[in-house]
Amino acid sequence: MSADAAVPTRKQRKVDDNGDNEDSKDYDLETQKALEEIDSCQNEIDVLNEKASEEILKVEQKYNKLRKPFFEKRNDLIKKIPNFWVSAFINHPQISALLDEEEEECLHYLSKLEVEEFDDIKSGYRLKFFFDENPFFENDVLIKEFHLGQADPVSSSTEIKWKENMELTKGQETTSKAGKKRAHSQPRTFFGWFLDNSDASLDDVAEVIKDDMWPNPLQYFLVPESDMNENGMEGDSYSDEDDEVDDNVVVVEEEGEEECEGENYEEEDDEP
Amino acid sequence: MSADAAVPTRKQRKVDDNGDNEDSKDYDLETQKALEEIDSCQNEIDVLNEKASEEILKVEQKYNKLRKPFFEKRNDLIKKIPNFWVSAFINHPQISALLDEEEEECLHYLSKLEVEEFDDIKSGYRLKFFFDENPFFENDVLIKEFHLGQADPVSSSTEIKWKENMELTKGQETTSKAGKKRAHSQPRTFFGWFLDNSDASLDDVAEVIKDDMWPNPLQYFLVPESDMNENGMEGDSYSDEDDEVDDNVVVVEEEGEEECEGENYEEEDDEP
Repeated sequence: MSADAAVPTRKQRKVDDNGDNEDSKDYDLETQKALEEIDSCQNEIDVLNEKASEEILKVEQKYNKLRKPFFEKRNDLIKKIPNFWVSAFINHPQISALLDEEEEECLHYLSKLEVEEFDDIKSGYRLKFFFDENPFFENDVLIKEFHLGQADPVSSSTEIKWKENMELTKGQETTSKAGKKRAHSQPRTFFGWFLDNSDASLDDVAEVIKDDMWPNPLQYFLVPESDMNENGMEGDSYSDEDDEVDDNVVVVEEEGEEECEGENYEEEDDEP
Repeated sequence: MSADAAVPTRKQRKVDDNGDNEDSKDYDLETQKALEEIDSCQNEIDVLNEKASEEILKVEQKYNKLRKPFFEKRNDLIKKIPNFWVSAFINHPQISALLDEEEEECLHYLSKLEVEEFDDIKSGYRLKFFFDENPFFENDVLIKEFHLGQADPVSSSTEIKWKENMELTKGQETTSKAGKKRAHSQPRTFFGWFLDNSDASLDDVAEVIKDDMWPNPLQYFLVPESDMNENGMEGDSYSDEDDEVDDNVVVVEEEGEEECEGENYEEEDDEP
Protein backbone atom coordinates (compact mmCIF):
# COMPACT_ATOMS: atom_id res chain seq x y z
CA MET A 1 0.00 0.00 0.00
CA SER A 2 2.70 2.48 0.87
CA ALA A 3 6.41 2.88 1.07
CA ASP A 4 6.28 1.38 4.54
CA ALA A 5 4.66 -1.76 3.25
CA ALA A 6 7.34 -2.05 0.60
CA VAL A 7 10.13 -1.68 3.11
CA PRO A 8 9.74 -4.47 5.62
CA THR A 9 13.23 -4.30 7.05
CA ARG A 10 13.26 -5.52 10.60
CA LYS A 11 15.70 -6.80 13.11
CA GLN A 12 17.10 -9.87 11.48
CA ARG A 13 17.44 -13.13 13.23
CA LYS A 14 20.06 -15.30 11.69
CA VAL A 15 19.86 -19.05 11.59
CA ASP A 16 22.48 -20.30 13.97
CA ASP A 17 24.62 -22.56 11.84
CA ASN A 18 27.77 -22.82 13.93
CA GLY A 19 26.54 -25.78 15.91
CA ASP A 20 26.67 -24.37 19.41
CA ASN A 21 22.93 -24.46 19.63
CA GLU A 22 21.47 -27.67 21.04
CA ASP A 23 17.94 -27.36 19.71
CA SER A 24 18.93 -26.77 16.12
CA LYS A 25 20.38 -30.27 16.12
CA ASP A 26 16.85 -31.63 16.20
CA TYR A 27 16.65 -30.78 12.52
CA ASP A 28 17.85 -33.18 9.92
CA LEU A 29 20.61 -31.92 7.68
CA GLU A 30 18.34 -31.25 4.74
CA THR A 31 15.99 -29.07 6.79
CA GLN A 32 18.86 -27.19 8.38
CA LYS A 33 20.30 -26.54 4.92
CA ALA A 34 16.93 -25.31 3.62
CA LEU A 35 16.60 -23.00 6.63
CA GLU A 36 19.99 -21.50 5.92
CA GLU A 37 19.09 -21.01 2.28
CA ILE A 38 15.82 -19.33 3.25
CA ASP A 39 17.80 -17.08 5.54
CA SER A 40 20.20 -16.07 2.80
CA CYS A 41 17.24 -15.54 0.43
CA GLN A 42 15.66 -13.36 3.12
CA ASN A 43 18.87 -11.33 3.31
CA GLU A 44 18.70 -10.64 -0.40
CA ILE A 45 15.09 -9.51 -0.02
CA ASP A 46 16.16 -7.26 2.85
CA VAL A 47 18.88 -5.68 0.72
CA LEU A 48 16.28 -4.91 -1.95
CA ASN A 49 13.94 -3.48 0.69
CA GLU A 50 16.74 -1.23 1.91
CA LYS A 51 17.41 -0.03 -1.63
CA ALA A 52 13.71 0.60 -2.27
CA SER A 53 13.54 2.56 0.98
CA GLU A 54 16.48 4.71 -0.06
CA GLU A 55 15.03 5.45 -3.49
CA ILE A 56 11.67 6.38 -2.01
CA LEU A 57 13.40 8.64 0.50
CA LYS A 58 15.16 10.42 -2.37
CA VAL A 59 11.86 10.96 -4.17
CA GLU A 60 10.34 12.37 -0.98
CA GLN A 61 13.31 14.66 -0.42
CA LYS A 62 13.16 15.89 -4.00
CA TYR A 63 9.48 16.75 -3.73
CA ASN A 64 9.88 18.30 -0.28
CA LYS A 65 12.31 20.71 -1.92
CA LEU A 66 10.01 21.36 -4.86
CA ARG A 67 7.02 21.97 -2.59
CA LYS A 68 8.87 24.31 -0.26
CA PRO A 69 8.56 27.56 -2.27
CA PHE A 70 4.82 26.95 -2.64
CA PHE A 71 4.40 26.43 1.10
CA GLU A 72 6.30 29.67 1.69
CA LYS A 73 4.19 31.53 -0.83
CA ARG A 74 1.10 30.08 0.82
CA ASN A 75 2.28 31.27 4.22
CA ASP A 76 2.76 34.81 2.88
CA LEU A 77 -0.75 34.78 1.42
CA ILE A 78 -2.28 33.37 4.59
CA LYS A 79 -0.82 36.30 6.56
CA LYS A 80 -3.06 38.64 4.57
CA ILE A 81 -6.18 36.91 5.88
CA PRO A 82 -7.28 37.88 9.37
CA ASN A 83 -7.61 34.95 11.78
CA PHE A 84 -6.83 32.36 9.14
CA TRP A 85 -5.19 29.82 11.43
CA VAL A 86 -7.53 30.18 14.39
CA SER A 87 -10.47 29.71 12.00
CA ALA A 88 -8.90 26.64 10.41
CA PHE A 89 -8.19 25.20 13.86
CA ILE A 90 -11.74 25.84 15.06
CA ASN A 91 -13.17 24.26 11.92
CA HIS A 92 -11.00 21.16 12.26
CA PRO A 93 -12.97 18.42 14.03
CA GLN A 94 -10.02 17.04 16.01
CA ILE A 95 -8.14 20.24 16.82
CA SER A 96 -11.27 22.15 17.80
CA ALA A 97 -11.96 19.49 20.42
CA LEU A 98 -8.83 20.66 22.22
CA LEU A 99 -9.48 24.39 22.27
CA ASP A 100 -10.91 26.03 25.34
CA GLU A 101 -12.29 29.58 25.16
CA GLU A 102 -9.18 31.38 26.34
CA GLU A 103 -6.98 29.35 24.03
CA GLU A 104 -9.14 30.33 21.08
CA GLU A 105 -8.63 33.95 22.08
CA CYS A 106 -4.89 33.38 22.28
CA LEU A 107 -4.75 31.64 18.90
CA HIS A 108 -6.07 34.80 17.24
CA TYR A 109 -2.44 35.93 17.57
CA LEU A 110 -1.13 32.88 15.70
CA SER A 111 0.26 34.49 12.54
CA LYS A 112 2.13 31.63 10.92
CA LEU A 113 2.33 27.85 11.09
CA GLU A 114 5.23 25.89 9.66
CA VAL A 115 5.85 22.17 9.46
CA GLU A 116 9.45 21.19 8.77
CA GLU A 117 10.39 17.61 8.13
CA PHE A 118 14.00 16.76 8.97
CA ASP A 119 16.22 16.19 5.94
CA ASP A 120 16.09 12.43 6.16
CA ILE A 121 12.30 12.64 6.85
CA LYS A 122 12.14 9.46 8.93
CA SER A 123 14.11 10.97 11.78
CA GLY A 124 11.42 13.46 12.70
CA TYR A 125 9.79 16.83 12.20
CA ARG A 126 9.14 20.15 13.85
CA LEU A 127 5.96 22.23 14.21
CA LYS A 128 6.53 25.98 14.46
CA PHE A 129 3.80 28.28 15.71
CA PHE A 130 4.60 31.97 15.16
CA PHE A 131 2.70 34.50 17.26
CA ASP A 132 2.18 38.25 17.02
CA GLU A 133 2.76 40.20 20.21
CA ASN A 134 -0.02 39.12 22.53
CA PRO A 135 -1.32 39.45 26.09
CA PHE A 136 -0.62 35.80 26.96
CA PHE A 137 3.11 35.10 26.58
CA GLU A 138 6.42 36.65 25.59
CA ASN A 139 7.52 34.05 23.00
CA ASP A 140 7.21 34.94 19.33
CA VAL A 141 7.55 31.34 18.26
CA LEU A 142 6.59 28.08 19.96
CA ILE A 143 8.28 24.98 18.57
CA LYS A 144 7.35 21.36 19.16
CA GLU A 145 9.91 18.94 17.78
CA PHE A 146 9.77 15.17 17.30
CA HIS A 147 12.82 12.92 17.09
CA LEU A 148 11.50 9.63 15.82
CA GLY A 149 14.56 7.97 14.27
CA GLN A 150 15.54 6.24 17.46
CA ALA A 151 14.22 3.25 19.37
CA ASP A 152 12.49 5.46 21.93
CA PRO A 153 11.05 8.53 20.16
CA VAL A 154 11.22 11.78 22.09
CA SER A 155 9.64 15.19 21.67
CA SER A 156 10.39 18.57 23.15
CA SER A 157 8.60 21.90 23.22
CA THR A 158 9.54 25.52 23.76
CA GLU A 159 9.05 26.68 27.31
CA ILE A 160 6.19 29.17 27.28
CA LYS A 161 7.00 32.44 29.03
CA TRP A 162 3.55 33.32 30.28
CA LYS A 163 2.79 36.93 31.15
CA GLU A 164 1.64 37.60 34.70
CA ASN A 165 -1.65 35.89 35.53
CA MET A 166 -2.04 34.76 31.91
CA GLU A 167 -0.85 31.17 32.25
CA LEU A 168 -3.46 29.20 30.31
CA THR A 169 -2.20 25.81 31.51
CA LYS A 170 -2.48 26.75 35.17
CA GLY A 171 -4.14 24.05 37.21
CA GLN A 172 -3.53 21.52 34.44
CA GLU A 173 -1.20 18.69 35.17
CA THR A 174 1.26 18.11 32.40
CA THR A 175 2.32 14.50 32.51
CA SER A 176 5.94 13.87 33.40
CA LYS A 177 8.14 11.60 31.31
CA ALA A 178 7.98 9.04 34.09
CA GLY A 179 4.20 8.76 34.12
CA LYS A 180 3.75 7.69 30.52
CA LYS A 181 0.09 6.98 30.71
CA ARG A 182 -1.89 10.16 30.32
CA ALA A 183 -5.00 10.42 32.44
CA HIS A 184 -7.56 10.50 29.66
CA SER A 185 -10.29 11.45 32.08
CA GLN A 186 -8.84 14.96 32.19
CA PRO A 187 -9.80 16.87 29.05
CA ARG A 188 -6.83 17.87 26.93
CA THR A 189 -6.29 21.43 25.89
CA PHE A 190 -4.20 22.92 23.09
CA PHE A 191 -1.36 24.20 25.28
CA GLY A 192 -1.65 21.11 27.45
CA TRP A 193 -0.97 19.09 24.31
CA PHE A 194 1.82 21.44 23.25
CA LEU A 195 3.70 21.01 26.53
CA ASP A 196 3.02 17.29 26.94
CA ASN A 197 6.08 15.30 25.88
CA SER A 198 5.22 12.11 27.69
CA ASP A 199 4.83 9.95 24.58
CA ALA A 200 6.31 11.22 21.33
CA SER A 201 5.47 8.03 19.46
CA LEU A 202 1.72 8.44 19.83
CA ASP A 203 1.06 12.15 19.33
CA ASP A 204 -2.19 12.15 17.40
CA VAL A 205 -2.58 15.94 17.48
CA ALA A 206 0.89 16.56 16.04
CA GLU A 207 0.15 14.05 13.31
CA VAL A 208 -3.15 15.70 12.47
CA ILE A 209 -1.37 19.05 12.16
CA LYS A 210 1.44 17.60 10.04
CA ASP A 211 -0.53 15.22 7.82
CA ASP A 212 -3.93 16.84 7.58
CA MET A 213 -3.93 20.53 8.51
CA TRP A 214 -0.59 21.49 6.95
CA PRO A 215 -1.10 19.78 3.57
CA ASN A 216 -4.31 21.73 2.97
CA PRO A 217 -5.43 24.25 5.60
CA LEU A 218 -7.69 26.14 3.18
CA GLN A 219 -10.27 23.38 3.27
CA TYR A 220 -10.62 23.87 7.03
CA PHE A 221 -10.67 27.66 6.82
CA LEU A 222 -13.40 27.32 4.22
CA VAL A 223 -16.44 25.50 5.55
CA PRO A 224 -17.79 23.35 2.72
CA GLU A 225 -21.35 23.92 1.60
CA SER A 226 -22.31 20.37 2.54
CA ASP A 227 -21.63 21.20 6.19
CA MET A 228 -24.15 24.06 6.14
CA ASN A 229 -27.84 23.44 6.70
CA GLU A 230 -30.55 24.71 4.38
CA ASN A 231 -30.64 28.17 5.92
CA GLY A 232 -27.00 28.66 5.09
CA MET A 233 -26.13 28.28 8.75
CA GLU A 234 -23.50 25.94 10.01
CA GLY A 235 -24.75 22.48 10.88
CA ASP A 236 -24.46 20.62 14.16
CA SER A 237 -20.96 19.41 13.47
CA TYR A 238 -19.58 22.89 13.93
CA SER A 239 -20.75 24.77 16.97
CA ASP A 240 -20.70 28.55 16.83
CA GLU A 241 -18.79 29.06 20.05
CA ASP A 242 -16.94 31.99 18.63
CA ASP A 243 -18.86 34.70 16.83
CA GLU A 244 -15.76 36.40 15.53
CA VAL A 245 -14.93 33.27 13.64
CA ASP A 246 -18.21 33.04 11.80
CA ASP A 247 -17.23 36.20 9.98
CA ASN A 248 -14.33 34.31 8.53
CA VAL A 249 -16.35 31.50 7.11
CA VAL A 250 -16.81 31.33 3.36
CA VAL A 251 -18.97 28.80 1.62
CA VAL A 252 -17.39 26.95 -1.26
CA GLU A 253 -18.65 24.65 -3.94
CA GLU A 254 -17.06 21.29 -4.40
CA GLU A 255 -15.94 20.80 -7.97
CA GLY A 256 -15.40 17.27 -9.22
CA GLU A 257 -14.97 14.20 -7.15
CA GLU A 258 -11.28 13.55 -7.14
CA GLU A 259 -10.35 10.37 -5.44
CA CYS A 260 -9.03 10.49 -1.94
CA GLU A 261 -5.54 9.09 -1.50
CA GLY A 262 -3.50 8.19 1.53
CA GLU A 263 -4.75 6.54 4.68
CA ASN A 264 -4.54 9.69 6.74
CA TYR A 265 -6.95 11.59 4.60
CA GLU A 266 -10.33 10.09 5.08
CA GLU A 267 -13.19 12.37 4.15
CA GLU A 268 -16.25 12.49 6.27
CA ASP A 269 -18.92 11.34 3.95
CA ASP A 270 -22.32 12.90 4.32
CA GLU A 271 -24.07 10.08 2.59
CA PRO A 272 -25.27 7.19 4.74
CA MET B 1 7.38 9.63 7.80
CA SER B 2 6.28 7.69 4.77
CA ALA B 3 5.19 8.02 1.21
CA ASP B 4 1.66 8.51 2.44
CA ALA B 5 2.67 11.49 4.51
CA ALA B 6 4.39 12.99 1.52
CA VAL B 7 1.39 12.56 -0.72
CA PRO B 8 -1.44 14.42 0.90
CA THR B 9 -3.73 14.60 -2.11
CA ARG B 10 -7.32 14.92 -1.05
CA LYS B 11 -10.60 15.95 -2.46
CA GLN B 12 -10.14 19.55 -3.37
CA ARG B 13 -12.58 22.25 -2.49
CA LYS B 14 -12.29 25.19 -4.80
CA VAL B 15 -12.88 28.75 -3.70
CA ASP B 16 -16.10 29.85 -5.28
CA ASP B 17 -15.11 32.92 -7.24
CA ASN B 18 -17.98 33.28 -9.66
CA GLY B 19 -20.07 35.37 -7.33
CA ASP B 20 -23.17 33.21 -7.04
CA ASN B 21 -22.41 32.54 -3.41
CA GLU B 22 -23.95 34.97 -0.93
CA ASP B 23 -21.67 34.32 2.03
CA SER B 24 -18.44 34.83 0.17
CA LYS B 25 -19.46 38.46 -0.33
CA ASP B 26 -18.80 39.05 3.35
CA TYR B 27 -15.11 39.09 2.46
CA ASP B 28 -13.43 42.24 1.35
CA LEU B 29 -11.86 42.15 -2.07
CA GLU B 30 -8.32 41.79 -0.78
CA THR B 31 -9.18 38.76 1.35
CA GLN B 32 -11.12 37.15 -1.47
CA LYS B 33 -8.15 37.67 -3.79
CA ALA B 34 -5.75 36.18 -1.23
CA LEU B 35 -8.05 33.17 -0.81
CA GLU B 36 -8.04 32.59 -4.53
CA GLU B 37 -4.27 32.84 -4.66
CA ILE B 38 -3.94 30.38 -1.77
CA ASP B 39 -6.23 28.06 -3.67
CA SER B 40 -4.13 28.23 -6.81
CA CYS B 41 -0.99 27.75 -4.72
CA GLN B 42 -2.65 24.71 -3.15
CA ASN B 43 -3.36 23.36 -6.62
CA GLU B 44 0.32 23.57 -7.51
CA ILE B 45 1.18 21.72 -4.30
CA ASP B 46 -1.41 19.07 -5.20
CA VAL B 47 0.13 18.62 -8.64
CA LEU B 48 3.52 18.05 -6.99
CA ASN B 49 1.96 15.59 -4.55
CA GLU B 50 0.45 13.71 -7.45
CA LYS B 51 3.82 13.55 -9.23
CA ALA B 52 5.59 12.40 -6.04
CA SER B 53 2.96 9.71 -5.62
CA GLU B 54 3.50 8.48 -9.17
CA GLU B 55 7.27 8.36 -8.80
CA ILE B 56 7.03 6.46 -5.52
CA LEU B 57 4.61 4.02 -7.12
CA LYS B 58 7.13 3.38 -9.90
CA VAL B 59 9.87 2.68 -7.35
CA GLU B 60 7.57 0.26 -5.53
CA GLN B 61 6.65 -1.48 -8.77
CA LYS B 62 10.30 -1.77 -9.78
CA TYR B 63 11.25 -3.38 -6.47
CA ASN B 64 8.19 -5.63 -6.42
CA LYS B 65 9.52 -7.03 -9.71
CA LEU B 66 13.07 -7.35 -8.36
CA ARG B 67 11.88 -9.07 -5.19
CA LYS B 68 9.62 -11.54 -6.98
CA PRO B 69 12.24 -14.17 -7.96
CA PHE B 70 13.51 -14.22 -4.36
CA PHE B 71 10.02 -14.74 -2.99
CA GLU B 72 9.56 -17.60 -5.46
CA LYS B 73 12.88 -19.14 -4.48
CA ARG B 74 11.92 -18.73 -0.84
CA ASN B 75 8.60 -20.51 -1.47
CA ASP B 76 10.43 -23.43 -3.10
CA LEU B 77 12.77 -23.71 -0.12
CA ILE B 78 9.94 -23.45 2.39
CA LYS B 79 8.25 -26.45 0.75
CA LYS B 80 11.20 -28.57 1.82
CA ILE B 81 10.51 -27.86 5.48
CA PRO B 82 7.73 -29.88 7.08
CA ASN B 83 4.99 -27.77 8.67
CA PHE B 84 6.75 -24.48 7.97
CA TRP B 85 3.63 -22.36 7.58
CA VAL B 86 1.57 -23.87 10.37
CA SER B 87 4.54 -23.37 12.71
CA ALA B 88 5.01 -19.76 11.63
CA PHE B 89 1.27 -19.15 12.09
CA ILE B 90 1.28 -20.71 15.56
CA ASN B 91 4.32 -18.69 16.58
CA HIS B 92 2.78 -15.42 15.38
CA PRO B 93 1.11 -13.66 18.32
CA GLN B 94 -1.83 -12.28 16.33
CA ILE B 95 -2.48 -15.16 13.95
CA SER B 96 -2.15 -17.83 16.66
CA ALA B 97 -4.95 -16.09 18.56
CA LEU B 98 -7.30 -17.08 15.71
CA LEU B 99 -6.43 -20.74 15.43
CA ASP B 100 -8.59 -23.34 17.07
CA GLU B 101 -7.34 -26.92 17.45
CA GLU B 102 -8.97 -28.36 14.35
CA GLU B 103 -7.80 -25.43 12.25
CA GLU B 104 -4.24 -26.03 13.36
CA GLU B 105 -4.61 -29.60 12.23
CA CYS B 106 -5.95 -28.42 8.89
CA LEU B 107 -3.14 -25.90 8.41
CA HIS B 108 -0.60 -28.70 8.50
CA TYR B 109 -1.71 -29.20 4.90
CA LEU B 110 -0.92 -25.57 3.97
CA SER B 111 1.97 -26.04 1.55
CA LYS B 112 2.44 -22.55 0.13
CA LEU B 113 1.47 -18.98 0.90
CA GLU B 114 1.62 -16.21 -1.66
CA VAL B 115 0.91 -12.50 -1.37
CA GLU B 116 0.36 -10.72 -4.67
CA GLU B 117 0.00 -6.99 -4.80
CA PHE B 118 -1.96 -5.71 -7.79
CA ASP B 119 0.16 -3.98 -10.42
CA ASP B 120 -0.73 -0.50 -9.30
CA ILE B 121 -0.29 -1.58 -5.65
CA LYS B 122 -2.80 0.88 -4.21
CA SER B 123 -5.73 -0.90 -5.80
CA GLY B 124 -5.38 -4.03 -3.69
CA TYR B 125 -3.81 -7.40 -3.11
CA ARG B 126 -4.51 -11.09 -2.96
CA LEU B 127 -3.58 -13.75 -0.40
CA LYS B 128 -3.24 -17.27 -1.81
CA PHE B 129 -3.21 -20.29 0.48
CA PHE B 130 -2.18 -23.50 -1.32
CA PHE B 131 -3.13 -26.78 0.32
CA ASP B 132 -2.05 -30.37 -0.17
CA GLU B 133 -4.81 -32.93 -0.47
CA ASN B 134 -6.40 -33.00 2.95
CA PRO B 135 -9.33 -34.47 4.90
CA PHE B 136 -11.08 -31.10 5.34
CA PHE B 137 -11.89 -29.62 1.92
CA GLU B 138 -11.58 -30.23 -1.82
CA ASN B 139 -9.97 -26.91 -2.80
CA ASP B 140 -6.27 -26.87 -3.56
CA VAL B 141 -6.05 -23.11 -3.24
CA LEU B 142 -8.02 -20.64 -1.13
CA ILE B 143 -7.79 -17.02 -2.26
CA LYS B 144 -8.79 -13.92 -0.36
CA GLU B 145 -8.68 -10.79 -2.47
CA PHE B 146 -8.93 -7.11 -1.51
CA HIS B 147 -10.02 -4.35 -3.87
CA LEU B 148 -9.09 -1.15 -2.10
CA GLY B 149 -8.80 1.38 -4.91
CA GLN B 150 -12.41 2.43 -4.66
CA ALA B 151 -14.45 4.52 -2.25
CA ASP B 152 -15.92 1.44 -0.60
CA PRO B 153 -13.26 -1.29 -0.42
CA VAL B 154 -14.49 -4.84 -0.93
CA SER B 155 -12.99 -8.25 -0.41
CA SER B 156 -13.92 -11.70 -1.60
CA SER B 157 -12.84 -15.21 -0.74
CA THR B 158 -12.91 -18.62 -2.40
CA GLU B 159 -15.89 -20.72 -1.44
CA ILE B 160 -14.57 -23.60 0.64
CA LYS B 161 -15.80 -27.01 -0.54
CA TRP B 162 -15.83 -28.81 2.78
CA LYS B 163 -15.74 -32.58 2.80
CA GLU B 164 -18.60 -34.35 4.54
CA ASN B 165 -18.83 -33.55 8.25
CA MET B 166 -15.55 -31.65 8.07
CA GLU B 167 -16.88 -28.08 7.92
CA LEU B 168 -14.72 -26.22 10.42
CA THR B 169 -16.86 -23.08 10.35
CA LYS B 170 -20.04 -24.96 11.22
CA GLY B 171 -22.01 -23.22 13.92
CA GLN B 172 -20.08 -20.01 13.35
CA GLU B 173 -21.98 -17.07 12.02
CA THR B 174 -20.16 -15.36 9.22
CA THR B 175 -21.29 -11.78 9.11
CA SER B 176 -23.26 -10.73 6.08
CA LYS B 177 -22.34 -7.64 4.08
CA ALA B 178 -25.40 -5.92 5.46
CA GLY B 179 -24.50 -6.38 9.13
CA LYS B 180 -21.18 -4.56 9.00
CA LYS B 181 -20.49 -4.65 12.68
CA ARG B 182 -18.93 -7.92 13.66
CA ALA B 183 -20.04 -9.31 16.99
CA HIS B 184 -16.71 -9.17 18.77
CA SER B 185 -18.06 -11.19 21.64
CA GLN B 186 -17.81 -14.28 19.43
CA PRO B 187 -14.18 -15.41 19.15
CA ARG B 188 -12.81 -15.26 15.64
CA THR B 189 -11.28 -18.28 13.99
CA PHE B 190 -8.95 -18.57 11.02
CA PHE B 191 -11.54 -19.80 8.54
CA GLY B 192 -14.11 -17.47 10.08
CA TRP B 193 -11.75 -14.64 9.21
CA PHE B 194 -11.07 -16.09 5.77
CA LEU B 195 -14.76 -16.15 4.87
CA ASP B 196 -15.68 -12.85 6.51
CA ASN B 197 -15.92 -10.11 3.88
CA SER B 198 -18.01 -7.70 5.90
CA ASP B 199 -15.39 -4.94 6.09
CA ALA B 200 -12.50 -5.04 3.65
CA SER B 201 -11.14 -1.70 4.81
CA LEU B 202 -10.36 -2.91 8.32
CA ASP B 203 -8.99 -6.41 7.89
CA ASP B 204 -6.26 -6.54 10.52
CA VAL B 205 -5.49 -10.24 9.94
CA ALA B 206 -4.98 -9.80 6.20
CA GLU B 207 -2.70 -6.85 6.90
CA VAL B 208 -0.66 -8.83 9.40
CA ILE B 209 -0.22 -11.60 6.82
CA LYS B 210 0.71 -9.16 4.06
CA ASP B 211 2.88 -6.71 5.97
CA ASP B 212 4.38 -8.82 8.73
CA MET B 213 4.22 -12.56 8.02
CA TRP B 214 4.95 -12.45 4.29
CA PRO B 215 7.95 -10.08 4.40
CA ASN B 216 9.80 -12.38 6.81
CA PRO B 217 8.11 -15.65 7.84
CA LEU B 218 11.39 -17.25 8.94
CA GLN B 219 11.47 -15.14 12.09
CA TYR B 220 8.14 -16.62 13.14
CA PHE B 221 9.08 -20.15 12.21
CA LEU B 222 12.22 -19.69 14.28
CA VAL B 223 11.46 -18.84 17.87
CA PRO B 224 14.08 -16.38 19.05
CA GLU B 225 16.17 -17.29 22.06
CA SER B 226 14.87 -14.31 24.00
CA ASP B 227 11.41 -15.88 23.94
CA MET B 228 12.63 -19.04 25.64
CA ASN B 229 12.94 -19.26 29.39
CA GLU B 230 16.10 -20.42 31.17
CA ASN B 231 15.31 -24.10 30.76
CA GLY B 232 15.26 -23.66 27.02
CA MET B 233 11.50 -24.06 27.06
CA GLU B 234 9.12 -21.70 25.38
CA GLY B 235 7.96 -18.86 27.56
CA ASP B 236 4.42 -17.84 28.43
CA SER B 237 3.91 -15.91 25.25
CA TYR B 238 3.83 -19.09 23.24
CA SER B 239 1.65 -21.86 24.55
CA ASP B 240 2.52 -25.39 23.59
CA GLU B 241 -0.93 -26.33 22.35
CA ASP B 242 0.52 -28.43 19.60
CA ASP B 243 3.30 -30.85 20.41
CA GLU B 244 4.05 -31.58 16.79
CA VAL B 245 4.97 -27.98 16.34
CA ASP B 246 7.54 -27.88 19.09
CA ASP B 247 9.62 -30.26 17.02
CA ASN B 248 9.84 -27.60 14.39
CA VAL B 249 11.20 -24.92 16.65
CA VAL B 250 14.80 -23.91 16.33
CA VAL B 251 16.52 -21.46 18.61
CA VAL B 252 18.47 -18.71 16.95
CA GLU B 253 20.90 -16.12 18.11
CA GLU B 254 20.24 -12.50 17.32
CA GLU B 255 23.22 -10.94 15.62
CA GLY B 256 23.58 -7.19 15.75
CA GLU B 257 20.89 -4.70 16.60
CA GLU B 258 19.71 -3.39 13.30
CA GLU B 259 17.25 -0.59 13.60
CA CYS B 260 13.61 -1.34 13.10
CA GLU B 261 11.99 0.50 10.22
CA GLY B 262 8.40 1.00 9.19
CA GLU B 263 5.45 1.52 11.46
CA ASN B 264 4.07 -1.94 10.89
CA TYR B 265 7.08 -3.69 12.24
CA GLU B 266 7.21 -3.01 15.92
CA GLU B 267 9.27 -5.49 17.85
CA GLU B 268 8.01 -6.80 21.11
CA ASP B 269 10.58 -5.59 23.51
CA ASP B 270 11.38 -7.85 26.40
CA GLU B 271 12.81 -5.05 28.47
CA PRO B 272 10.42 -3.11 30.68
